[in-house]
Amino acid sequence: MSPAAEILCIGTELLLGTITNTNARWLAEQLASLGIPHLRQQVVGDNRERLIAAVREAAGRCRVLITTGGLGPTPDDLTTEAIAAAFGSSLEERPEAWAAIEARLAARGRSVSASLRRQALLPAGAELLPNPTGTAPGMIWTPKPGFTVLTFPGVPSEMRAMWQATAEPWLRAAGLAGGVFASRLLRFWGLPESDLAERVADLLEGLNPTVAPYAGAGEVKLRLTARADSPTAAQALLEPLEADIRSRLGDLCFGTGDDSLASVVLELLRQRDETVAVAESCTGGGIGAALAAVPGASDGFQGGVIAYANAVKQGVLGVSETSLAVHGAVSDPVALAMAAGVRRLTGASWGVAVTGIAGPDGGTAAKPVGLVHIALAGPDGSRSEGVRFSASRGRAWIQTLTVGEALNRLRLRLLAAA
Amino acid sequence: MSPAAEILCIGTELLLGTITNTNARWLAEQLASLGIPHLRQQVVGDNRERLIAAVREAAGRCRVLITTGGLGPTPDDLTTEAIAAAFGSSLEERPEAWAAIEARLAARGRSVSASLRRQALLPAGAELLPNPTGTAPGMIWTPKPGFTVLTFPGVPSEMRAMWQATAEPWLRAAGLAGGVFASRLLRFWGLPESDLAERVADLLEGLNPTVAPYAGAGEVKLRLTARADSPTAAQALLEPLEADIRSRLGDLCFGTGDDSLASVVLELLRQRDETVAVAESCTGGGIGAALAAVPGASDGFQGGVIAYANAVKQGVLGVSETSLAVHGAVSDPVALAMAAGVRRLTGASWGVAVTGIAGPDGGTAAKPVGLVHIALAGPDGSRSEGVRFSASRGRAWIQTLTVGEALNRLRLRLLAAA
Repeated sequence: MSPAAEILCIGTELLLGTITNTNARWLAEQLASLGIPHLRQQVVGDNRERLIAAVREAAGRCRVLITTGGLGPTPDDLTTEAIAAAFGSSLEERPEAWAAIEARLAARGRSVSASLRRQALLPAGAELLPNPTGTAPGMIWTPKPGFTVLTFPGVPSEMRAMWQATAEPWLRAAGLAGGVFASRLLRFWGLPESDLAERVADLLEGLNPTVAPYAGAGEVKLRLTARADSPTAAQALLEPLEADIRSRLGDLCFGTGDDSLASVVLELLRQRDETVAVAESCTGGGIGAALAAVPGASDGFQGGVIAYANAVKQGVLGVSETSLAVHGAVSDPVALAMAAGVRRLTGASWGVAVTGIAGPDGGTAAKPVGLVHIALAGPDGSRSEGVRFSASRGRAWIQTLTVGEALNRLRLRLLAAA
Repeated sequence: MSPAAEILCIGTELLLGTITNTNARWLAEQLASLGIPHLRQQVVGDNRERLIAAVREAAGRCRVLITTGGLGPTPDDLTTEAIAAAFGSSLEERPEAWAAIEARLAARGRSVSASLRRQALLPAGAELLPNPTGTAPGMIWTPKPGFTVLTFPGVPSEMRAMWQATAEPWLRAAGLAGGVFASRLLRFWGLPESDLAERVADLLEGLNPTVAPYAGAGEVKLRLTARADSPTAAQALLEPLEADIRSRLGDLCFGTGDDSLASVVLELLRQRDETVAVAESCTGGGIGAALAAVPGASDGFQGGVIAYANAVKQGVLGVSETSLAVHGAVSDPVALAMAAGVRRLTGASWGVAVTGIAGPDGGTAAKPVGLVHIALAGPDGSRSEGVRFSASRGRAWIQTLTVGEALNRLRLRLLAAA
């Protein structure tokens, strides 16, 4: 018998795809923070036989089973009954559980219905897991040596309150919490996941701390996780690892944790007491929206111009008709004129401009879908360069990568100028 | 052997609670729409032995196993290898798979790395499941009579594209889809999910067609699904139902299928040969980005001004210093001046302006976090009105609702003016 935990979520609505299983993720995070290995999650519907089978299988594999769902008063709430049946046990009414349900309904001014009485039934020997915010209690039951099941309702707020008030202290007291986990997320821009994985290939083999790569939209990440006896010891395992990775990847690593390219750029601007404005064509305001998503953005973000139509590039940003005619809207000269124009217009320290072909139409052999020119104008001069994103992932992907690439170029320029 | 399907999601990040399992829900919805019973979901980590055990168990229970994750180039991507091992099969390199990977990398101007070669390995007899948007292909493999496994990468966009292009047609052709399903999604803006559910409460009880409500970010949806012997018969069940719902909800229903508020607004503008420009403060470019997300947006979307700082509201949009001082930046007079300013500046038929307090800071008793003023200036005059969104869900939520509300007001105005 392993000391590991499993999660079993019960509900036909999960199998129909009606709701996302956010409970499983929340519980997984809790188990990780307690250092309890979590090796498997399952979902079954409101079906007595399959529920009994899933509980029996889990009982053969794990030390602790956490269930969610199926504790309510309706006929398709079968969890307690099925778990009892899985171990040949019968249910008995718990007066203290029934009293708690009556008290809660009275407090809400509601009358007691017979169907609620089912919620006071538990197998003999099970401990009540009180529900401070709802009527359906759970249970903590050890039907056989070395196997305990904890049941929770499917309502996320009730499940979380019950976990924190009763289940977590119980797991700690039972000696099941194994050490302490510390975790750190490092964020990168400018290389594909496979390249990142190759550059830290030796570290991906480690068992403690572990390093795991993840791909995002343009961005790639490494999750570092260490296990130790104390938070301090766990952090001490992470620090040299993070330093090693940073020394290998340099400024490809743009941040940690909840950082975004936009939040890092705004922080660099804050340190320099500078500001930025944007001039966006193919992204239509996406760079500005990314900056505005950061709380306190107003310290460094001035705003800008969405120059989607060429008339706006000319009329508002002052791009010359000649430049548009000779070089085309998607070109370095136009990007440079846009960046300079928005900087002049807003008085920002930095102007960031993008102009490109997001597709699906509008591409040519010389200027294909995915081609974007990005210009930066700043206190130390202007620069523009083209980049070609793959057209195969579509318009939204090209727009997302353009937003990230523009912010990353500004980040690198601010770092270089520091 | 039951004709049912199971879903097996592979990834230690799911067991650590690092990410939510949105793939499982999406796949569950697809199976439901195909009429394929889906009786169990599982999650295991990147662990060869446990993966083999989970695959063998599923093979003893279901007809079709759908897996996600573990197809990448890194050493912890074990899915293909483990599935082959579960049935005592070995892997062989598929030249056509390797050629597709090389071609994709060449198109991106990247060189081939040895680690990617693993992605071209499949068990003997497995059919390649092409990945049109990434390098990791999947497979469709029947390792024993009456059991087929379909593998997908964990990246949601790749998985979805592969499902739609190859897996769904394969499941239909294999006769695994139960009858013919027709489905329609109706999209609503301007009422909470609970109100929508109440107004169609009687229809939610129906068994064929079924009606199911979903909440989104501000938007709410109804999924209508009918099952019949032919596509025509299934559509015929949906039509009177849709008409009934539309007659109850009127113009709260803004679209169907892949429509967005932005795409509907652009279509209404196209019909009138009109254009729009935006003047955005608290959304920082989000309305523009939503419009630019629609292919062909350039027909109706001119661009606009991101007036995040008051200096830009004054200097670029011509909002008067008096107006800002007397009424404050978050007010109807300022919103109206912004809308008029961007309309004048760009020559667009319509100007849409938003100014508000997205928080978490900056709120006062008189102007709390969540207060937004939205103005429309058009051929038939100008109007502005405040709206107060709940602050409890945070900055990103307020920004998202503001974008939707602004586009919806323009939609209603265009409908009224028609």
